Amino acid sequence: MTQDVGKLVDAARDGDPRSVARLISMVERNAAELAEIAAVFGADAQRAHVVGLTGSPGVGKSTTTNELVAAYRRDGKRVGVLAVDPSSPFTGGAILGDRVRMQDHATDPGVYIRSMSSRGHLGGLSAATSAAVRVLAGVGCDVVLVETVGVGQAEVEIASLADTTLVLLAPGMGDAIQAVKAGILEIADVFVVNKADRDGADATVRDINGMIALGERGPGQWRPRVVKAVAARGEGIEDVLKAIEEHREYLEKSGELRKRREERAAAEIEALVLGRMRARIGSLRGGHSLAELAAKVAEGVVDPYRAAEELLSGLG
Amino acid sequence: MTQDVGKLVDAARDGDPRSVARLISMVERNAAELAEIAAVFGADAQRAHVVGLTGSPGVGKSTTTNELVAAYRRDGKRVGVLAVDPSSPFTGGAILGDRVRMQDHATDPGVYIRSMSSRGHLGGLSAATSAAVRVLAGVGCDVVLVETVGVGQAEVEIASLADTTLVLLAPGMGDAIQAVKAGILEIADVFVVNKADRDGADATVRDINGMIALGERGPGQWRPRVVKAVAARGEGIEDVLKAIEEHREYLEKSGELRKRREERAAAEIEALVLGRMRARIGSLRGGHSLAELAAKVAEGVVDPYRAAEELLSGLG
Repeated sequence: MTQDVGKLVDAARDGDPRSVARLISMVERNAAELAEIAAVFGADAQRAHVVGLTGSPGVGKSTTTNELVAAYRRDGKRVGVLAVDPSSPFTGGAILGDRVRMQDHATDPGVYIRSMSSRGHLGGLSAATSAAVRVLAGVGCDVVLVETVGVGQAEVEIASLADTTLVLLAPGMGDAIQAVKAGILEIADVFVVNKADRDGADATVRDINGMIALGERGPGQWRPRVVKAVAARGEGIEDVLKAIEEHREYLEKSGELRKRREERAAAEIEALVLGRMRARIGSLRGGHSLAELAAKVAEGVVDPYRAAEELLSGLG
Repeated sequence: MTQDVGKLVDAARDGDPRSVARLISMVERNAAELAEIAAVFGADAQRAHVVGLTGSPGVGKSTTTNELVAAYRRDGKRVGVLAVDPSSPFTGGAILGDRVRMQDHATDPGVYIRSMSSRGHLGGLSAATSAAVRVLAGVGCDVVLVETVGVGQAEVEIASLADTTLVLLAPGMGDAIQAVKAGILEIADVFVVNKADRDGADATVRDINGMIALGERGPGQWRPRVVKAVAARGEGIEDVLKAIEEHREYLEKSGELRKRREERAAAEIEALVLGRMRARIGSLRGGHSLAELAAKVAEGVVDPYRAAEELLSGLG
């Protein structure tokens, strides 16, 4: 272990936000210390409960996150927040603006908040988020909240990093139907109908319950909870926490937590291996390099399947 | 070569649509004969000019494709059409409905039309489309038209299979701005402003030309053409053909055709290799299998980077 990494981890565990920031930056940019950092954390990296929070713009994700952080802090828990915006390299600013609302916790050493945009992550945003979650867990966060914007494919992928996934909806946004379309029903463990003081809240709850009832699930399997909240007034937050806690208990008792984490680890290892393979394919030498084979395929001398076989035999 | 593949290819080259259909189905489902089929075609698989055609729903893609097919047929060219809908496994029906409009060509042995949806392609829609293009070229199509719905990421990917990419727009749909957002400007070789008899056609042409002028390009590089058309009345189709032909000549003279096809071949080979690696990772045995390592990572005994290294060393 280099001196640097050890010192950083010690300081981060003591709650120094700059050390946490440096560690996350290192894993984000795939620094040479990446493996070393992961090795230092060991089993600690698996200790936090990872809660995903997603929903369309305007449903009140930041406000809800803010209230959840406050509630966890009242219980004396250390909390990490990752605000992820995969949609665009240009919206980093918007998210940072959003973060201003979270200044409540800016000076609290028990809370670490970080925005992540799609800029410059060599291994993809999903891999970077996963590595950042590991850092936050490793330095001692009891809960890591991963907040994503929207309900697209990238968000579903990032939500899959979570142990428990919350999907936020607001009344009258037609989100229920959107949710089914985007396949969000399969990933939601808890639905939060926020802004529940608005017209149509009960109809939205009914719609979601209807959809849940339609979903097939075996005996003993988790049935997604539906909770009403008005996050801006702090109402319903305790109910959200309770639903998260129930889900955590279910995960542990059913063995599902272990299963989910193993699947997640398998996906992460596979992504790392394929990334390294990709690099190796690009740098192959000795008559069988990718560029040479591609030229032959473009000429029609070799077909792509034979080219792939040749490359594979070269790879071992 | 098995008897079957040889016979099928011979019949397909003679214009038998059922043989073409069987060959495409074989490559679509990754049949064992996949490599054999590719090997039989050899350089023929590279002979066709591949024209991509994309745009939002309602801009008149099917009508334009239909008119382009008719024009190519007047020149005595054999034409293949692949209508691709990557957005949903459920819209196959809609696309097939659309195809009814193409019945003009249903009994013409010089035209082969095929709809492809995202259902059941093991290697992904992009790989399946690429393989289907190769079949159509291999059996003697001079032109292969690949029509995709929308301008999302998947469509951009599929458009990248084409030598020449047409982007269809309609006046007053705000598509010009959408196009920039979706990064379509970088992939468009020819813009077709369809329904040009509507209000706002000239403004749309002006917008696009303005965007093109903003784009940096070196001396001798292709400047996207902007063509007006009213496909439903056959107007402007000759101009579209002319723009496609100019682009083809540019591609050949500049060496860009070769370059694009080599890049495409490299991407295809890489995808095939990674697909096979993925299968190999899943089936690894001997204490280093993915599942065992994933369990160790989930326990925190091993970190994912070390797990990836172990898997890689096992792979050769």
